[in-house]
Amino acid sequence: MLINGKHHHTIWVNKTNQQLIQVFDQRYFPHQIEVFDIQTTDEAAFAIREMVVRGAPLIGVTAAYGMYLACIEAEEKINPEEYIYDVAKKLNATRPTAVNLAWAITEMLKVIIPIKENSERIEVALKMANQIKEDDILICENIGLNGVEIIRKVAKQKNGKTVNILTHCNAGWLATIDWGTALSPIYHAQKEGIDIHVWVDETRPRNQGANLTAFELNEQGVAHTLINDNTGGHLMQHGMVDLVIVGTDRTAGNGDVANKIGTYLKALAAHDNNIPFYVGLPSSTLDCSIKNGVKDIPIETRDQNEVKYIQGKVDRKIKSVLICPETTPALNYGFDVTPAKYVTGLITERGICEASEEGIRKLFPEKFD
Amino acid sequence: MLINGKHHHTIWVNKTNQQLIQVFDQRYFPHQIEVFDIQTTDEAAFAIREMVVRGAPLIGVTAAYGMYLACIEAEEKINPEEYIYDVAKKLNATRPTAVNLAWAITEMLKVIIPIKENSERIEVALKMANQIKEDDILICENIGLNGVEIIRKVAKQKNGKTVNILTHCNAGWLATIDWGTALSPIYHAQKEGIDIHVWVDETRPRNQGANLTAFELNEQGVAHTLINDNTGGHLMQHGMVDLVIVGTDRTAGNGDVANKIGTYLKALAAHDNNIPFYVGLPSSTLDCSIKNGVKDIPIETRDQNEVKYIQGKVDRKIKSVLICPETTPALNYGFDVTPAKYVTGLITERGICEASEEGIRKLFPEKFD
Repeated sequence: MLINGKHHHTIWVNKTNQQLIQVFDQRYFPHQIEVFDIQTTDEAAFAIREMVVRGAPLIGVTAAYGMYLACIEAEEKINPEEYIYDVAKKLNATRPTAVNLAWAITEMLKVIIPIKENSERIEVALKMANQIKEDDILICENIGLNGVEIIRKVAKQKNGKTVNILTHCNAGWLATIDWGTALSPIYHAQKEGIDIHVWVDETRPRNQGANLTAFELNEQGVAHTLINDNTGGHLMQHGMVDLVIVGTDRTAGNGDVANKIGTYLKALAAHDNNIPFYVGLPSSTLDCSIKNGVKDIPIETRDQNEVKYIQGKVDRKIKSVLICPETTPALNYGFDVTPAKYVTGLITERGICEASEEGIRKLFPEKFD
Repeated sequence: MLINGKHHHTIWVNKTNQQLIQVFDQRYFPHQIEVFDIQTTDEAAFAIREMVVRGAPLIGVTAAYGMYLACIEAEEKINPEEYIYDVAKKLNATRPTAVNLAWAITEMLKVIIPIKENSERIEVALKMANQIKEDDILICENIGLNGVEIIRKVAKQKNGKTVNILTHCNAGWLATIDWGTALSPIYHAQKEGIDIHVWVDETRPRNQGANLTAFELNEQGVAHTLINDNTGGHLMQHGMVDLVIVGTDRTAGNGDVANKIGTYLKALAAHDNNIPFYVGLPSSTLDCSIKNGVKDIPIETRDQNEVKYIQGKVDRKIKSVLICPETTPALNYGFDVTPAKYVTGLITERGICEASEEGIRKLFPEKFD
């Protein structure tokens, strides 16, 4: 998608140096557009853990390139295979909730472990990481093509009046490689000329809505308005929201949806006001080994300072302001889980299904093997 | 209640100059503890509009003293009565949602308009404003004495284990004169030695939870943890909240509760998880002329920059950081309305009642006259 009118991906292999992976440093968006270099597996782990990159699909692709870098580093090790497994473990431990991380690492291990020759392994690893990246783009495009049908229907019901869509956090192209998950249907609706407007939840504590979603919708020219996370319920009560679309970091086999903390509250409000609540996801986000998402999806606890301090721009610099007494204790869960009963449907690359084991089975029977 | 171990009220008449009303300037809490002087009706209007003072009961008392200042200013006017009505109108227009404002102004007008002699009118006005202030303290104390019974019961059910109470915004003593509304039962529970812990919603956009509630609980020595507004649902889902108590800016005759934006979302989550959801309020907050709160309580729209910029402390100064692209449009509703069906009960100075016309009628029949 676009930054300053130029098409970009969120991650790429440097054109002149194949051992250099580059990403946009999302910690400083929208105030600074900077590129972050990943040349080692430690840097890949840092990028994921410190949220230089974020969003389940992008985390997965970054981990895939991390495994490629592991193959390069393994060349100089006495036991390359053992080293590759150690890196897999290290990358896997960076963040607990997004299942794409484990998924991408497993996909990479499947193809690289059988190869015993170093240079061949490196070559295959790069090819596979590139493949995962290209697949993600295609998957996100298909999520958009499937999801736009929902928006088209609402537009028809409203006789062409503006369709108001609420989203939480950032599940746009910056969370993936291109297109996004929750935002892909929105970008496809824009392409079709449907009159849309997006309510952007700021998404405390890290404000990915304000920092990233508002930024990318602005760059793409999609009408939008920033709101506090507290506001969505009031808007829904007063007919100002037609549709909610969010992303997910892990969706369980029963259709329970883990996503950015606060998603559950919006699902409750949508339910209370008879507003459809959809989740856009690539199937790599499905974790059918988990039967009860609310109970069993692991929820990341992050640094309490993300709650106590808020980052933004002041005096032309990026700084963090303290919003409470210095000694105040805070607690910072990164995600919550929305029970399947509050989810109208899952928008996937293969179509839209019910958020239930039955629904998921119909589209992805292999996920239950 | 306490600041630095010393007992204070939020508003007082200066000891040596009876024409000077003083308040804590709540715009800079907790980083700076400053006193703001109110010597004119313009300064009273400024203090309410710019949220130097906030919280429905404190707004009411400030308006009462504003009407006292109107009587002083009226002394020099050709038509004092007309001037007093003009000030009443000016003060009434400062903020639209808190009904205590109109209530206090009406109470003042009732006693001062019949008096035709200037100095007598001033004297009576001061006495009446002082009375409204003293009444508010007593009312808040009684809300605490009535509400603590709920906490006592939960503590008993939990066999003395910590009672976890979630609150949104600031309905503590800083929103009133002393004790608070939602927090008064909590302070009374503390006095009784009940083991309590408070989850403090930060309460975007102005962060009254982080700035004020965390501050006052800390000064009072009540255990608490600051959380983002997005977090309460997850905590409730996982048994980490026993009880929700919030305040209100206006409660309609049908029991619908207007309170800080985001309250409705917490009420939905409490309902979804069978957690009692109580509202603490002085009867001056009841507006039984409104039959349908969700539909008819006016909701204040505030400056969009409160969403785009967040104030806090950085480099030992109070500054505001921009959290989105500069051109991003934002929308800022100050309040939402929680339908009565999600409210377990109203904790008032006369006891606890159901959030319904029938419930309110039992305790406050005169409110429906």
